[in-house]
Amino acid sequence: MTHTPAFLHPPRREHDLLGEIEVPALAYYGAHTVRAVRNFRISGTLISAYPRLIAALAVVKQAAAQSNRELGLLEPRIADAIVTACERLRAGELHDQFVVDSIQGGAGTSTNMNANEVIANLALEDLGRPRGEYVTVHPLDHVNLGQSTNDVYPTAVKLALDGAVTALVAEIAVLRAAFSAKATEFADLLTIGRTQLQDAVPMTLGQGFAAYAVTLGEDETRLNEARLLLHELNLGGTAIGTALNADPGYREHALTALRALSGIETLTSAPDLIEATQDTGVFVQLSGVLKRVAVKLSKICNDLRLLSSGPRAGFGEITLPARQAGSSIMPGKVNPVIPEVVNQIAFEIIGHDLTVTMAAEAGQLQLNAFEPIIARGLFDSLDHLTAGVTTLADHCVRGITANTERLAHNMSTSIGLATALNPAIGYANATAIARQALEQDRPITDLVLEQGLLDGTQLAELLSPARLTGRVTAGPGAEEA
Amino acid sequence: MTHTPAFLHPPRREHDLLGEIEVPALAYYGAHTVRAVRNFRISGTLISAYPRLIAALAVVKQAAAQSNRELGLLEPRIADAIVTACERLRAGELHDQFVVDSIQGGAGTSTNMNANEVIANLALEDLGRPRGEYVTVHPLDHVNLGQSTNDVYPTAVKLALDGAVTALVAEIAVLRAAFSAKATEFADLLTIGRTQLQDAVPMTLGQGFAAYAVTLGEDETRLNEARLLLHELNLGGTAIGTALNADPGYREHALTALRALSGIETLTSAPDLIEATQDTGVFVQLSGVLKRVAVKLSKICNDLRLLSSGPRAGFGEITLPARQAGSSIMPGKVNPVIPEVVNQIAFEIIGHDLTVTMAAEAGQLQLNAFEPIIARGLFDSLDHLTAGVTTLADHCVRGITANTERLAHNMSTSIGLATALNPAIGYANATAIARQALEQDRPITDLVLEQGLLDGTQLAELLSPARLTGRVTAGPGAEEA
Amino acid sequence: MTHTPAFLHPPRREHDLLGEIEVPALAYYGAHTVRAVRNFRISGTLISAYPRLIAALAVVKQAAAQSNRELGLLEPRIADAIVTACERLRAGELHDQFVVDSIQGGAGTSTNMNANEVIANLALEDLGRPRGEYVTVHPLDHVNLGQSTNDVYPTAVKLALDGAVTALVAEIAVLRAAFSAKATEFADLLTIGRTQLQDAVPMTLGQGFAAYAVTLGEDETRLNEARLLLHELNLGGTAIGTALNADPGYREHALTALRALSGIETLTSAPDLIEATQDTGVFVQLSGVLKRVAVKLSKICNDLRLLSSGPRAGFGEITLPARQAGSSIMPGKVNPVIPEVVNQIAFEIIGHDLTVTMAAEAGQLQLNAFEPIIARGLFDSLDHLTAGVTTLADHCVRGITANTERLAHNMSTSIGLATALNPAIGYANATAIARQALEQDRPITDLVLEQGLLDGTQLAELLSPARLTGRVTAGPGAEEA
Amino acid sequence: MTHTPAFLHPPRREHDLLGEIEVPALAYYGAHTVRAVRNFRISGTLISAYPRLIAALAVVKQAAAQSNRELGLLEPRIADAIVTACERLRAGELHDQFVVDSIQGGAGTSTNMNANEVIANLALEDLGRPRGEYVTVHPLDHVNLGQSTNDVYPTAVKLALDGAVTALVAEIAVLRAAFSAKATEFADLLTIGRTQLQDAVPMTLGQGFAAYAVTLGEDETRLNEARLLLHELNLGGTAIGTALNADPGYREHALTALRALSGIETLTSAPDLIEATQDTGVFVQLSGVLKRVAVKLSKICNDLRLLSSGPRAGFGEITLPARQAGSSIMPGKVNPVIPEVVNQIAFEIIGHDLTVTMAAEAGQLQLNAFEPIIARGLFDSLDHLTAGVTTLADHCVRGITANTERLAHNMSTSIGLATALNPAIGYANATAIARQALEQDRPITDLVLEQGLLDGTQLAELLSPARLTGRVTAGPGAEEA
Repeated sequence: MTHTPAFLHPPRREHDLLGEIEVPALAYYGAHTVRAVRNFRISGTLISAYPRLIAALAVVKQAAAQSNRELGLLEPRIADAIVTACERLRAGELHDQFVVDSIQGGAGTSTNMNANEVIANLALEDLGRPRGEYVTVHPLDHVNLGQSTNDVYPTAVKLALDGAVTALVAEIAVLRAAFSAKATEFADLLTIGRTQLQDAVPMTLGQGFAAYAVTLGEDETRLNEARLLLHELNLGGTAIGTALNADPGYREHALTALRALSGIETLTSAPDLIEATQDTGVFVQLSGVLKRVAVKLSKICNDLRLLSSGPRAGFGEITLPARQAGSSIMPGKVNPVIPEVVNQIAFEIIGHDLTVTMAAEAGQLQLNAFEPIIARGLFDSLDHLTAGVTTLADHCVRGITANTERLAHNMSTSIGLATALNPAIGYANATAIARQALEQDRPITDLVLEQGLLDGTQLAELLSPARLTGRVTAGPGAEEA
Repeated sequence: MTHTPAFLHPPRREHDLLGEIEVPALAYYGAHTVRAVRNFRISGTLISAYPRLIAALAVVKQAAAQSNRELGLLEPRIADAIVTACERLRAGELHDQFVVDSIQGGAGTSTNMNANEVIANLALEDLGRPRGEYVTVHPLDHVNLGQSTNDVYPTAVKLALDGAVTALVAEIAVLRAAFSAKATEFADLLTIGRTQLQDAVPMTLGQGFAAYAVTLGEDETRLNEARLLLHELNLGGTAIGTALNADPGYREHALTALRALSGIETLTSAPDLIEATQDTGVFVQLSGVLKRVAVKLSKICNDLRLLSSGPRAGFGEITLPARQAGSSIMPGKVNPVIPEVVNQIAFEIIGHDLTVTMAAEAGQLQLNAFEPIIARGLFDSLDHLTAGVTTLADHCVRGITANTERLAHNMSTSIGLATALNPAIGYANATAIARQALEQDRPITDLVLEQGLLDGTQLAELLSPARLTGRVTAGPGAEEA
Repeated sequence: MTHTPAFLHPPRREHDLLGEIEVPALAYYGAHTVRAVRNFRISGTLISAYPRLIAALAVVKQAAAQSNRELGLLEPRIADAIVTACERLRAGELHDQFVVDSIQGGAGTSTNMNANEVIANLALEDLGRPRGEYVTVHPLDHVNLGQSTNDVYPTAVKLALDGAVTALVAEIAVLRAAFSAKATEFADLLTIGRTQLQDAVPMTLGQGFAAYAVTLGEDETRLNEARLLLHELNLGGTAIGTALNADPGYREHALTALRALSGIETLTSAPDLIEATQDTGVFVQLSGVLKRVAVKLSKICNDLRLLSSGPRAGFGEITLPARQAGSSIMPGKVNPVIPEVVNQIAFEIIGHDLTVTMAAEAGQLQLNAFEPIIARGLFDSLDHLTAGVTTLADHCVRGITANTERLAHNMSTSIGLATALNPAIGYANATAIARQALEQDRPITDLVLEQGLLDGTQLAELLSPARLTGRVTAGPGAEEA
Repeated sequence: MTHTPAFLHPPRREHDLLGEIEVPALAYYGAHTVRAVRNFRISGTLISAYPRLIAALAVVKQAAAQSNRELGLLEPRIADAIVTACERLRAGELHDQFVVDSIQGGAGTSTNMNANEVIANLALEDLGRPRGEYVTVHPLDHVNLGQSTNDVYPTAVKLALDGAVTALVAEIAVLRAAFSAKATEFADLLTIGRTQLQDAVPMTLGQGFAAYAVTLGEDETRLNEARLLLHELNLGGTAIGTALNADPGYREHALTALRALSGIETLTSAPDLIEATQDTGVFVQLSGVLKRVAVKLSKICNDLRLLSSGPRAGFGEITLPARQAGSSIMPGKVNPVIPEVVNQIAFEIIGHDLTVTMAAEAGQLQLNAFEPIIARGLFDSLDHLTAGVTTLADHCVRGITANTERLAHNMSTSIGLATALNPAIGYANATAIARQALEQDRPITDLVLEQGLLDGTQLAELLSPARLTGRVTAGPGAEEA
């Protein structure tokens, strides 16, 4: 590469279906990309912001080049140059050459062409040829050989999503472990469980945190199930799935290469490539599972904010770690900003799910033209959710402390204890005691003892933490023994 | 009508485009309706469940018949019989003859045809002629004269929605009044306001309820604005808005008749009937406003449930009236079932808004074929929302009581009072006091007096209810005077 | 039962937490139900409209009674009477006694209590005792023994959903078979595939219909996966999952009974009952899959409407069976009303998914109070979707015919054929030919022959249906052989 | 500023509620911002990406400083320095100092604090003092004087949204004009209108485009109505709307200053500041209107893609300007990429509306903590929608051409003409003719003449463009005259 400043290089001229167009001299992209950049000035977030997608495109292009070389369709010298170019992209180089807006018309064609052009010019550079000398390495005839956007783009999106889902699952496991640690830490702290925000029956604070760990574990399973669906690919189907113009051996070769390059052994070729080319059901499924994760995380964060509300005039049972001053006017106020940001991520993801849903529904006949917004929605959802999960574990859950005095006070005064006495004193007596306790603002236990319904030993047994929290469950018959 | 049991009457035979079909002898509906019933066995909720829509269809048909008579297009005798039939429907008679499923294909054609057929047979009855003698009164040639489903149906839907919105606004006003009454009742009860669920600065409980009244008042305004948009009609545009086959004078005559029959003086004819025939923007707008009402009501109900949480281990500042036993296992438990049902209605309405949105987006070229699901969604949203608002006012808000002891306790112990001392002791001192109060579990006021930062008189002035709640606002300068 | 008219029976009086209340003399339901009916006058759609739910509640109650008898907690005579009552409900009797609105506050308590009361009074009848004699058979102490709404209600909802999902899957299989039959019927009809609504490359009409069959088959798999998740139950967890007051042996006994009564061998008890009691993730998952089915069905229906558009000034490649006259003004017009109704069902289901999502997100701490609207949304979605799928198969797909002349014309004139010539004449020549064909309105084949680019034999080979549609794929190398 | 490289400057140390923290030496932001950056590593899109918001924050801060100076609460020298700092930000300087993630917890506190800190340090620079010397100009005591995030942030968001809505309305007007120009250009081109995708009755292509112009004009009105609602502000309410610690004169002074600085004369102070502080209804309303615009634009783009489908095997009535090569495999293919990108923007906006809805619903008690995601959603929606509208006008609508031959052919062969003959030959004859025309693949007109139903003159009159398209409407009676 020369050291003359870029602006001194005259632009090169390229041709395509629509005629001639100027391309910046040093750009690795070409005519199609330049047109696409002009056509789509929408979000300012370019596809370079999605490195997983660029790397996955390079994987697909490399697999195709290797297959075409093996099938004798591509000159080894050219194939090798293309492979080298793809490896550079996979290593993270030159992602800044992916300059098309992430919101684009054309079913991913511009993203595919951007990749084709960058790879062609990188290959030309590798061969010591100038950029734009497409007679030597052509973006379409060589880089895109045997391919169509309609099989390349969804294949790349699926490979990239696989990586993003894997990353999310790993972070959820970390968060799950953080909740589990708290479950252990708070295993002996009794609190009052609430149903419908009303005091219900006792449990331990640890049981509450254990439930969060369990529920996250289920989401890991659901995510991994959805991830496996991403492994069914339509590469080799070309334009609409009929494989027109693809070599009969290409599909199998490319699949083998994809497995090797991606390291994903479970990649398969869809049984019906026409269906696989037009269907976006896998993205709807994945988005639905992401929405589920978001819903559950939001519920957990709502709980954390509620349990830490106060510090005085709220639930006040736990304290979240202080992360920043909470107010520009109120001295000493600290807010639950970490759960709050996760709530907001959840709302964003639920919105993305709707975008994905509408885009999927709008597919027509042999293709869904709206895959770019589907991809953007899913990548953003996965990235933000992963960031949120990490943030929640690191900046909040690990530092949560229990307010033992408040917990003990809530337990001792709660009318929810009355339920535990049902088997011994009957529902009617328990109801009467509960009502008196509430009206007189007195503990259930005092009233029971005072009225001689039970003696201290009986009461202690019925209200033993083990029995209350289900570690030893005593049914009505048990008392009679 | 004969007294022979219905099942003894042999069915009559009618003809249409698709050939001959049997119709129950006593049915007022005819061939098209019978086919539509067979085609659409979906929800089991028939259009008879929407009496406002049936009455509105009758208004439109009556307006058309009167106009056609005045224009000399319809024989007076037939026109009068049609008018009489419409008046019976408007009076609530024979709605059971509207038997097509509310979820139906065909842009409302089956609903319109159901109306045409019922009206034709009612008119025949009025003229002493047997059902099905369409040569005398024809569902299309007479009842539907100068009309198309594509102008009749949306016109009727808009008229019916106008009534439903009016009913909702009236009920919201009742709920608003209930909140206002509580605002007055609780005007002097100090509480601690919360931001982000953390104790913030003082206010009165009455101010909290007043805010609910104000926010509902704004919704009434928004609903009335959206309602006015319903008054722009496309009647007279026939199939696609070009008014093909409609008499030049029909549009104006029909509009005048619609105004008189509906009592809505602000009805107008759309300036561009082609646009008005294909556009469903008014329904999206109304649905968006209903969603807004739902969002705000849900937030209010969340607040009510939160403020009444406990009764011991929660916020416990207010008590909602007990409406039913809350638990099949927990003695004495009472749950906030009324706010809960309103929350659920809100979620339903937000879902309907999405249905309406998708249906509106799916319109194509000169018509939106999906108006039936739009109508169903809007009518259900309006009816359920109206019922929810009434229920909330009657069964919850009016009976809310304040727990004055808890309120007083929350106020006295809150560290939120520190903010009020800022102007007098400075942000730094206030922060220190807040921190100490929290750590030592002591009231702010004790610490301030103890440390000689202020004397009792100053403290009383700074913490006077009037100042705290903004009825008299004292700025930093005020203290110096 | 007496033969005195119902209105002559004086109401009986029952008592509950809130005091005395009148119950209609002949009603099998009791005090709680009467209060709930008064509290929730919302949608007018009562829980009796969901027979699967009522039957499932009876299954749960029967399983509980049997378990309690085996555990010695319930007198055999009473247990047997309860079992008999449950069997009557499962047989479809007396569903009209389930009179609470399907939109209700209280996390399903009123539905559970309605069941408890009806079963108690049926059992009393069986024992020859009068209604309301709860000292003999008590709705809570006997029918609800060892249970809480919070474990009974979600268990019943899951069992009922299992049945509804099974029914849906069966109907989708029928629709899939209908598409497969068309795929066979149209196997040899060439057409032009479209991507982004622009003519792309050839395929057969049969391939298009085969893709619909394949995509529906995938949905059956997804639905069955989601259905299996419904089999994890929290019965035995009582109020919050700690199993307070439940006999230690109850959970296992009840599970065994549930398996036997429901015939679902894969029912299991959740490993963490606290998590299982508060989590609604399974409903979100199922709803997400239903949304996916809706999205795909809507896309298919969009395609059917598009391919049958015209009959003249549209795509016109297929004709849908005429089901009803399409217009009240346009003679001879027939509309695609069956796909249209399925589109609308899809929009409704996507809306329900949002309702379910919001309700799930709103769960708090140990319970989700909004399960009734979740259940309602899912049941309606399943029922309407099942009806829509059946309707689509019966009233549309089976009767679809192909317009062979239009198909042949589209094929012969399409510029999409140019792609097939790429391997033989190169991309540049193919592009030039395509452009000329468009400009001169001439067939590709004529131009190719005229310009001597290929001879007739070559052309026939390249454009052979087998090659075009992928049944025999010839790559660039193939031509050189 | 020094010329020593930044990395050689040792960081400065600042203090806040949580203790000491290092701040980059040259940063204008301070301790709170540094903590917030660490807390929220979510989307990578910083608030600097929203220049309208930063400028609006500066407007609010400047208005506050000016008011506080006038009220004697702020030393003129300090006030002036703050004003100068704000003016620099309003001029677009130093936006790169707004480094907090746009997805953040804390109800906007971090955004407000970022602004306070940057302004304080800019003011210090102006006064010749070093960064961090807050004893001279303090972010809270001076820049934030009399304010709270809870009144500053929503006020700034509303001002910024006002500008963004204004920009959108202006671009919609441009698009509307483009459609109007096409309406004029195509005013005499007859085509067949379609309802439910089936050939209906004639219209002109120009009428179709005119409808788009009209419908966009209505959206401009709706947007302006929603924009006016943004003008009601809660500035002066401080933390929760009680105006605690704000000078009694502050609210009025600040409002006057805001009007002058923003140039928006219609700004008002909300009548109930407590309601205005917690309510986000205005954002839901605006979002709903944006959704409406998106729905309508998406429908229009669907129409454009449908009308231009083909070029051969589709509707083919119009041609969209070619913007880029459409396919990496199919020669000569050009796709409707511009409408496609607008469809995708629409789907995104509908998703954002859901995010805004959920965030609004999640507000609790005296504040909605989720305003940052509401703001982000609205700004992105407005920006992308504005870009999409501009793109559609510039790159698509203006270059649309009509395919007159196809239009004429569609008209002449359409059976939709039969409707126009109704008044003259009757519905029954018209139906018969329509059926024959379809079966025999012949024009309606030929059959009518052949069968002697009408003569050429009558036919010409009935099918005159003026009559068909509603410019002259002839009813049944007209023919008899």
